[in-house]
Amino acid sequence: MKSTLTTATLMISCPDQRGLVAKIANFIYSNGGNIIHADQHTDFNTGLFLTRVEWQLDGFNLSREEIAPAFEDFSVNLKAKWKIHFSDRPFRMAIWVSKQDHCLLDLLWRYSAKELNVNIPLIISNHLDLKYIADQFSIDYYHFSINQRNKIQQETQQLDLLRKYKIDLVVLAKYMQILSFDFIRQFDQVINIHHSFLPAFVGANAYHKAYERGVKIIGATAHYVTENLDAGPIIEQDIVGISHRDNVEDLIYKGKDLERVVLARAVRLHSQNRVLVYDNRTVVFK
Amino acid sequence: MKSTLTTATLMISCPDQRGLVAKIANFIYSNGGNIIHADQHTDFNTGLFLTRVEWQLDGFNLSREEIAPAFEDFSVNLKAKWKIHFSDRPFRMAIWVSKQDHCLLDLLWRYSAKELNVNIPLIISNHLDLKYIADQFSIDYYHFSINQRNKIQQETQQLDLLRKYKIDLVVLAKYMQILSFDFIRQFDQVINIHHSFLPAFVGANAYHKAYERGVKIIGATAHYVTENLDAGPIIEQDIVGISHRDNVEDLIYKGKDLERVVLARAVRLHSQNRVLVYDNRTVVFK
Amino acid sequence: MKSTLTTATLMISCPDQRGLVAKIANFIYSNGGNIIHADQHTDFNTGLFLTRVEWQLDGFNLSREEIAPAFEDFSVNLKAKWKIHFSDRPFRMAIWVSKQDHCLLDLLWRYSAKELNVNIPLIISNHLDLKYIADQFSIDYYHFSINQRNKIQQETQQLDLLRKYKIDLVVLAKYMQILSFDFIRQFDQVINIHHSFLPAFVGANAYHKAYERGVKIIGATAHYVTENLDAGPIIEQDIVGISHRDNVEDLIYKGKDLERVVLARAVRLHSQNRVLVYDNRTVVFK
Amino acid sequence: MKSTLTTATLMISCPDQRGLVAKIANFIYSNGGNIIHADQHTDFNTGLFLTRVEWQLDGFNLSREEIAPAFEDFSVNLKAKWKIHFSDRPFRMAIWVSKQDHCLLDLLWRYSAKELNVNIPLIISNHLDLKYIADQFSIDYYHFSINQRNKIQQETQQLDLLRKYKIDLVVLAKYMQILSFDFIRQFDQVINIHHSFLPAFVGANAYHKAYERGVKIIGATAHYVTENLDAGPIIEQDIVGISHRDNVEDLIYKGKDLERVVLARAVRLHSQNRVLVYDNRTVVFK
Repeated sequence: MKSTLTTATLMISCPDQRGLVAKIANFIYSNGGNIIHADQHTDFNTGLFLTRVEWQLDGFNLSREEIAPAFEDFSVNLKAKWKIHFSDRPFRMAIWVSKQDHCLLDLLWRYSAKELNVNIPLIISNHLDLKYIADQFSIDYYHFSINQRNKIQQETQQLDLLRKYKIDLVVLAKYMQILSFDFIRQFDQVINIHHSFLPAFVGANAYHKAYERGVKIIGATAHYVTENLDAGPIIEQDIVGISHRDNVEDLIYKGKDLERVVLARAVRLHSQNRVLVYDNRTVVFK
Repeated sequence: MKSTLTTATLMISCPDQRGLVAKIANFIYSNGGNIIHADQHTDFNTGLFLTRVEWQLDGFNLSREEIAPAFEDFSVNLKAKWKIHFSDRPFRMAIWVSKQDHCLLDLLWRYSAKELNVNIPLIISNHLDLKYIADQFSIDYYHFSINQRNKIQQETQQLDLLRKYKIDLVVLAKYMQILSFDFIRQFDQVINIHHSFLPAFVGANAYHKAYERGVKIIGATAHYVTENLDAGPIIEQDIVGISHRDNVEDLIYKGKDLERVVLARAVRLHSQNRVLVYDNRTVVFK
Repeated sequence: MKSTLTTATLMISCPDQRGLVAKIANFIYSNGGNIIHADQHTDFNTGLFLTRVEWQLDGFNLSREEIAPAFEDFSVNLKAKWKIHFSDRPFRMAIWVSKQDHCLLDLLWRYSAKELNVNIPLIISNHLDLKYIADQFSIDYYHFSINQRNKIQQETQQLDLLRKYKIDLVVLAKYMQILSFDFIRQFDQVINIHHSFLPAFVGANAYHKAYERGVKIIGATAHYVTENLDAGPIIEQDIVGISHRDNVEDLIYKGKDLERVVLARAVRLHSQNRVLVYDNRTVVFK
Repeated sequence: MKSTLTTATLMISCPDQRGLVAKIANFIYSNGGNIIHADQHTDFNTGLFLTRVEWQLDGFNLSREEIAPAFEDFSVNLKAKWKIHFSDRPFRMAIWVSKQDHCLLDLLWRYSAKELNVNIPLIISNHLDLKYIADQFSIDYYHFSINQRNKIQQETQQLDLLRKYKIDLVVLAKYMQILSFDFIRQFDQVINIHHSFLPAFVGANAYHKAYERGVKIIGATAHYVTENLDAGPIIEQDIVGISHRDNVEDLIYKGKDLERVVLARAVRLHSQNRVLVYDNRTVVFK
């Protein structure tokens, strides 16, 4: 059985140097921590060392509040970027949708089934179609109609909502709008599901384009959103075979199953602090 | 057990109309043929009916020479494109290679193991590296060094060789040259293996591009060659998962396994007359 | 686009003989039918010919009521088993569950999204846990507590309910009881989802057994229920990779995603009359 | 680019205790080693800690000969099982075959292409059919006809050969004989490829059994050989979809492609010291 005790997880990236595995493990061990997961990766192209260490808080000599300053002191010479999470502090997640319900429902089922270590207090949409689902799950639902003129203004209010609800993570679950550069600069923890095997078929109508091209396999891609459309760091991809018998509607049907499972896997990985971004790519510590 | 009797296979595409399945089946049946495979597809977008019918020649009332004219008479009002093949007349196939041996060796092993219904009398290369393999298998090997100035001239000789060896099918098994438009117009039965999940990563250095983009899955695509680079009708695709631990060399390693199996499947399907091309896409009657 | 006109579908199995494809196509064509899908398979081991033919009712010379008698007359010498379905007469389906909700929710969501050509008027369970879901979807829910003594008696009432609700198809969506031989003899259109790659790990605790064995892949299998436990004709299987990091709970988590998609695919195939059973196996006309 | 410097790899399993990651990393670091890969797994069921650590020998303070005694001293209180390998000391591997060539050829191609960190000085067979391949690759080939009476006697000579050739690893590449308990007790580093998705279809005729059962997916499994037939620790598995159109010969054809790639992956993982066995299961540090 997996331990159900509360754990702390450190995710670190820094220039590679000798002894990093030992030093970081010592930091935990010398403070009485029991490491239950340690994984690391060295990218020899960029000279970066990336690691994830998870240990039980039970018996650890530092209080939660003391860990960050202590690690800051410890790592001062490492030039490290790092963050720490505690397993009993679930991510606060907002789901953004338009009219399609499959990804939203899938995430909410998993949320109900406690498959995701998140809280979901907020759903935002540019339509009212799915409000009834938010009501079923007793989640606040905000509607912002979006057009070319009001987009920036609406985003300002949307950002206010994210702050008000203390949102850590936005999941675009078939939200059929592109977020502005400015939005992403202010809030960059955004996961999107794209209905193709990126980088094939960027942008709208990916299934139509896939049909046109006559591919034999279609895919879905979950990625972090950046300023460049469908070009952010990829977290998870999967595919399904198709044949000449499948028309565009069949692709959409088969794709929906892909989209929801690929998005759910990405959200779950993120919620478990298993995804480290660097250089427009991800290390996924599975 | 599958029948090992000689069969004839008709592949037909024509504008859809009522009764085509019955009419074509009747053509076979009324001449005493025993159909062992019949499959059809209607593309409602283009209004095309496409079919593959295979029947045993044993007991068929028409001789091989009579079938084509008889079907021509029969189909005169169908505006059909069609071709006929006999299972005891294997395709005559030429393999074109550069320096990499994995696809060549794989095809030759399958050829030896009688997995492909082909004869392979000819290997063409722009290098001499793989000549020793051709020698092992007692297959004629022609070397044409290619550069920008001599390409068209060399292609003229290559086309002469295809004619001389009565080649039906050219397989580019990691031939790192692009055939000219003119070549393709003169000889269009060419299968290529591309080292990506098309249409992602068209052109050279697909694995490097895949690594750069940080994808979590890589693919390979077998397609017919057309005038547009890597844009011809796709026959077969497959993928393999990768992770952050895989660098470009790992992608190349994993990709080689994909390339050889995807190319072999496409060649086998073609050699069994299971691939019908229309509108830059394929119907694969499996 | 696929035709949305009403179609009739014939599924036929009979001893193989010359001309069957032509004869059956002629039966449709001579009555003015436009075939939109025809597929056939010959099993050379058993000497059986199996086919599925679908045609548009629009313009067909026979009324619905006339088709069956006409085909009966036509096929009298074929020793055929056959059945006919009309696309505007959805299957009436009952879902049987115990306490787990994932397959039920998945089927009901697809039902709402019109992905399955079925009506679902009835849910049966040996527990009350999921009644609230039935209520949400306004579907009748019957609770039968089951123990070794009352099982046969309860099955009698369950069969009465199937008759009362005119049920064509029972789907065991994680119903953790084994139906008696007698039940299956009286009602044999039952699809079950088994949480393993059959025939591995028959019976209960398949994930625990998979963990014990140390497999690297787990699976799920949708099959028709017969008198032999987990040994009926397989409709659909799929798998997912696991690693040493996955304990039993992880297998259960990953398996749930498999179970629901494999069961949904099987139900969809059945609801489209694409599954033909013979000799404890299936032909799936995709 | 991956480092091409010589590395040492330690594989360790021991009862879990606090500080193991730190202690082991310190052992390397305090001796001047640069860790390039460290992965660990804790099995909470058995209370075992399992780890793989790889570091560059360049700059390491201990000579090769000193490392093992030093680690023995270091680990005396850990009750650890461990072994050490150096990347410039390839495994010495013997391939055992019967009459089928596909796995043998595949391994030899990869060997030629330097995909496997092994030397292959020896091929053993109970038939003479594949001797010509050994000759092509200039590998010694020994023929032992096997029957019920001479099996133990022949195994004695086979074991002598393994010793004479200093073989570390035996790969059964479609060797259609079962090794005796006694053989395995004397030499237990044996990888076998089984032509099914174990534990389904143990023993002979797996494809026939799969066909009989009417499965929709077939598999292959590479595992270490133990005293129990097809029940040893699984290293790698993979699958391929089949349909009703595939008869036993088709299963065999499709299965061959699986067998060779699954076996090759297992051999490669073993040759990179990525597989740790405990409790009849494997940890595969990828």
